[in-house]
Amino acid sequence: MKKLCCALAAFALLPGLVSAQSIYPLDRATILSGSKFDFKVEFPTIVAPEDIQVLINGESYETLLRGSAEFIENEDDSNGSTLILRDISVDAPGSYTVEARAGEEGATVNWEVFGTPAERKAKNVIFFLGDGLTVAHRTAARIISKGNTEGKADGRLALDDLQYTALIGTSSQDTIHNDSANTMAAYMTGHKSVVNALGVYGSRAASNFDHPKVETLGEALRRTTDMSIGIVTNTELQDATPAAVASHTISRNDKPEITEMLFAIRPEVIMGGGSAYFLPQSTPGSSRKDDQDFIAKFQEAGYTLATSAEEMRQAAADHTDGKLLGLFHTGNLDTTLDIRQLRKGTVETFPDQPILADMTQVALDILSKNEDGFFLMVENGHTDKLAHALDWERAIYDMIAFDHAIGVAREFQQANPDTLIIVVGDHTHGMSITGTVDDDKPGDEMREKVGTYQRAGFTNYVDEDGDGYPDSMDVSKRLMIYFGNFPDHYETFRPKLDGPFVPAVADGNGNFVANEAYKDVPGAVLRIGNIPANVNAGTHSIDDEVLQADGPGAENFRGYMENSDVYRVIAEALALAPQAE
Amino acid sequence: MKKLCCALAAFALLPGLVSAQSIYPLDRATILSGSKFDFKVEFPTIVAPEDIQVLINGESYETLLRGSAEFIENEDDSNGSTLILRDISVDAPGSYTVEARAGEEGATVNWEVFGTPAERKAKNVIFFLGDGLTVAHRTAARIISKGNTEGKADGRLALDDLQYTALIGTSSQDTIHNDSANTMAAYMTGHKSVVNALGVYGSRAASNFDHPKVETLGEALRRTTDMSIGIVTNTELQDATPAAVASHTISRNDKPEITEMLFAIRPEVIMGGGSAYFLPQSTPGSSRKDDQDFIAKFQEAGYTLATSAEEMRQAAADHTDGKLLGLFHTGNLDTTLDIRQLRKGTVETFPDQPILADMTQVALDILSKNEDGFFLMVENGHTDKLAHALDWERAIYDMIAFDHAIGVAREFQQANPDTLIIVVGDHTHGMSITGTVDDDKPGDEMREKVGTYQRAGFTNYVDEDGDGYPDSMDVSKRLMIYFGNFPDHYETFRPKLDGPFVPAVADGNGNFVANEAYKDVPGAVLRIGNIPANVNAGTHSIDDEVLQADGPGAENFRGYMENSDVYRVIAEALALAPQAE
Repeated sequence: MKKLCCALAAFALLPGLVSAQSIYPLDRATILSGSKFDFKVEFPTIVAPEDIQVLINGESYETLLRGSAEFIENEDDSNGSTLILRDISVDAPGSYTVEARAGEEGATVNWEVFGTPAERKAKNVIFFLGDGLTVAHRTAARIISKGNTEGKADGRLALDDLQYTALIGTSSQDTIHNDSANTMAAYMTGHKSVVNALGVYGSRAASNFDHPKVETLGEALRRTTDMSIGIVTNTELQDATPAAVASHTISRNDKPEITEMLFAIRPEVIMGGGSAYFLPQSTPGSSRKDDQDFIAKFQEAGYTLATSAEEMRQAAADHTDGKLLGLFHTGNLDTTLDIRQLRKGTVETFPDQPILADMTQVALDILSKNEDGFFLMVENGHTDKLAHALDWERAIYDMIAFDHAIGVAREFQQANPDTLIIVVGDHTHGMSITGTVDDDKPGDEMREKVGTYQRAGFTNYVDEDGDGYPDSMDVSKRLMIYFGNFPDHYETFRPKLDGPFVPAVADGNGNFVANEAYKDVPGAVLRIGNIPANVNAGTHSIDDEVLQADGPGAENFRGYMENSDVYRVIAEALALAPQAE
Repeated sequence: MKKLCCALAAFALLPGLVSAQSIYPLDRATILSGSKFDFKVEFPTIVAPEDIQVLINGESYETLLRGSAEFIENEDDSNGSTLILRDISVDAPGSYTVEARAGEEGATVNWEVFGTPAERKAKNVIFFLGDGLTVAHRTAARIISKGNTEGKADGRLALDDLQYTALIGTSSQDTIHNDSANTMAAYMTGHKSVVNALGVYGSRAASNFDHPKVETLGEALRRTTDMSIGIVTNTELQDATPAAVASHTISRNDKPEITEMLFAIRPEVIMGGGSAYFLPQSTPGSSRKDDQDFIAKFQEAGYTLATSAEEMRQAAADHTDGKLLGLFHTGNLDTTLDIRQLRKGTVETFPDQPILADMTQVALDILSKNEDGFFLMVENGHTDKLAHALDWERAIYDMIAFDHAIGVAREFQQANPDTLIIVVGDHTHGMSITGTVDDDKPGDEMREKVGTYQRAGFTNYVDEDGDGYPDSMDVSKRLMIYFGNFPDHYETFRPKLDGPFVPAVADGNGNFVANEAYKDVPGAVLRIGNIPANVNAGTHSIDDEVLQADGPGAENFRGYMENSDVYRVIAEALALAPQAE
């Protein structure tokens, strides 16, 4: 198994999964009728094939699954036998009880196979994924971009008018916690999985690519429709969120392979960063370990390449019914505050990166040519990455950018009411708006300049140029957002104008300590972290995610839902299940 | 003006309001047709009455408001003149532009007077106010009380099935921040106000009781219907939330007067704490400064008094169509964890306090006798008070108790589908679930025992007795909730079994410092506060509140709404406006 990087740490065999019999899909799985999946039974010990009995609703599994599973006596030296039957499907909606036993030992799981109405409710689906989207993102974006007078918002975010709202559970197969891979994969497959996984259940397989697969929405659309597919992000295209539209691996870090998996479904529009994984290893800047050239492959498949905002606009104008590959950065695009205003980060190297609203407009222009409709996924990854970095000013600026992209989609929806719009995060962060911080308040310590209750008053952000963004995030009376969990860092109480915040740096012993670069910011306060010292950034929270939606099918978002239930609403809106004869 | 206590601090004249002309109701006010309110114009200087011109939609205000305002040359030594006309109403729905000028100086505001349908959608309304209710309350209550297996909740909270959800803005007339008084008052009047205010706009009047009033829902129901009214809380009945059903004062701390204001609307069922403000000053334990005996007054008005859970049940059984006053504590009731399990706090002194679900059941039994329907407000105040105290374990236990009360109401609604249920908080707290804390993890420092992502795993709360509550909050693998803002305190990483957490104590110089009582808890870590040192507790956050609702009228909760808009949905569901002839 590959070594995984970063705060998400190494994936290990799941406690429990090796010592008890496991059946995949798991208990309480909900499976789209007709969708492809792998059926796997893991026995905790080595068993004889003749002792194995697997029944579904009392009959041999072979009847329903129309095939015979491969028997692996000792799977990947786990000292356990395995049955595996890949790429199967179940057409008839209903409840299925799966029993697997070998001698005395046995296990039972229940599946629900669901159908969909025969008629599509929606021609198009636009799925906005605000990575790490938390309630505070919304409120702060509204206050900063629209203003507030006498307690009432002076304007509405585009997402404020989405009619339907639901609370979404984000827990995982292996933990009540989450990450961006398995949560987005739950939206895109209807199945929960383990942290870091995409389009597979977490099993005891040794290879990242051998775990039991579940079909992605991208694949389901290709299997059942002639719709177009669009993927737009301001992260690497191989990052967890865009990857989840099409990928199958236990590790979100398999970025070279994810590039290949994205190519496999050939989204008509695919725009973002991560060109390093498209380029063959011989090209300087490549992050591949092979000679495959995915830019060439996409071009051979008829795609126009755009590497800047200007090229993107030109490509959209020139090839209005063509296919577009936009690669604007070797890694993640810069933050919208840096692109539009501060020109920090890597903007000097990549000076003409598009913002999300412009990418969304171009994607809609191209995708909407398809009379069979389209599915467009638009991600703002910075609402998460900047929350990890405790750089809330940039995160909120990017939330405003995200809302502008939603506004573009809402305009499209007005003209095309057969469009379902969904706006949701994959998980939350522990961020909340405490009040204001007012440089003009007396006192030496910055905490004394923090205002709460009536002492918070109002902020003094302005938008004189009317572009929908504050002219400066660095005003004298600002919002004060705090994070509930954090690594060691200096709290500076003000935006980082020199570039994105790097709160903690490696100490050389595997831990992270406060970045001394911020020590001398006037008023900076050292905060000792409250999460393990080997974590370099703030972490996700487990609080329910808020989903907002509008358009045909949106009425099915209600109350509390698991993230894996969102897939079903999309599948129903698009009528993806085969109909009984 | 009275001096106000506590973290909410002294209310002062509002900056801006004395220097600029002000008209009340404020700009963008939404006013229920026929509802009573005070009209006030404040001039920034002393003006001659003959120089004053006040027009509404171009005509003298006297035409629409059917009266002539009192002129006060120099209001309360403010060096400004005032016009005031009390207890008026506007019947005709529509947009009104109010212009007031004196010589050169002038101001304009716009009001919307809204009507309601002629037919009531709902016979009954049950309004659940979870004080300080935050998304994390819901998620943690679900995980702790229902469990989670392989990422899916093992059961649903009662509130999880409420169909409609909206995001609610909680900002105030005088600040983007909030408190529990003006936020609940916004729900109960349709008007925002200043921090600490109830049923009045914040003006420059000197007396707490002279500010321009707006009608409370309690009063509107008495004016327009024969419905019954119920108020149930586990705080003092004079606390901000229950007070807002009926009160008019700039200060939530006017508890003796609030008692009188509650009596004025004579809710058929009124249960909670705060008996100290019912008792005449001569009675030991009284907090009144006069000789009024509100227990006697309620009894004379036909109320049965209950002072314990047993007496409450008995009273409900004996007087099934009578009126009930339940006073179970001189102050706030104890937390549900203390009442049901730990017997700490003041449970020894008040050993038979009812829990919220039981009070809700009794209230419904009594109120539902009224063929004209009822309005019942049920508050859980501990979800807020314990969040202030950073005592999240008790807060979540009380969230479970709150959900059980919602469950009682949902059962009632099943039998009485003409019932609208609303569940909402008044504001949020900066609390979020970071992961788990596992005593069995290696390491000396408690932060190393905090698990995030896959290292969080699952908690080991159990509910062996099946009462819907965890048998213990003090399990070895617990949730870890952190707060974003806080006073100086010791983070102990575990529940406080000896009684509610008191994170900070006065240092004698007007500031609060960490309570040394927790210094020696194994693993405790000193946290220096990030809010002003004179604040003794964690503070509210400004993040949008999540409202959930079901039943007739609930479909009008959608997207983003101001808290003051919630009143309109209730008014429409109950058809409170007069109908045109």
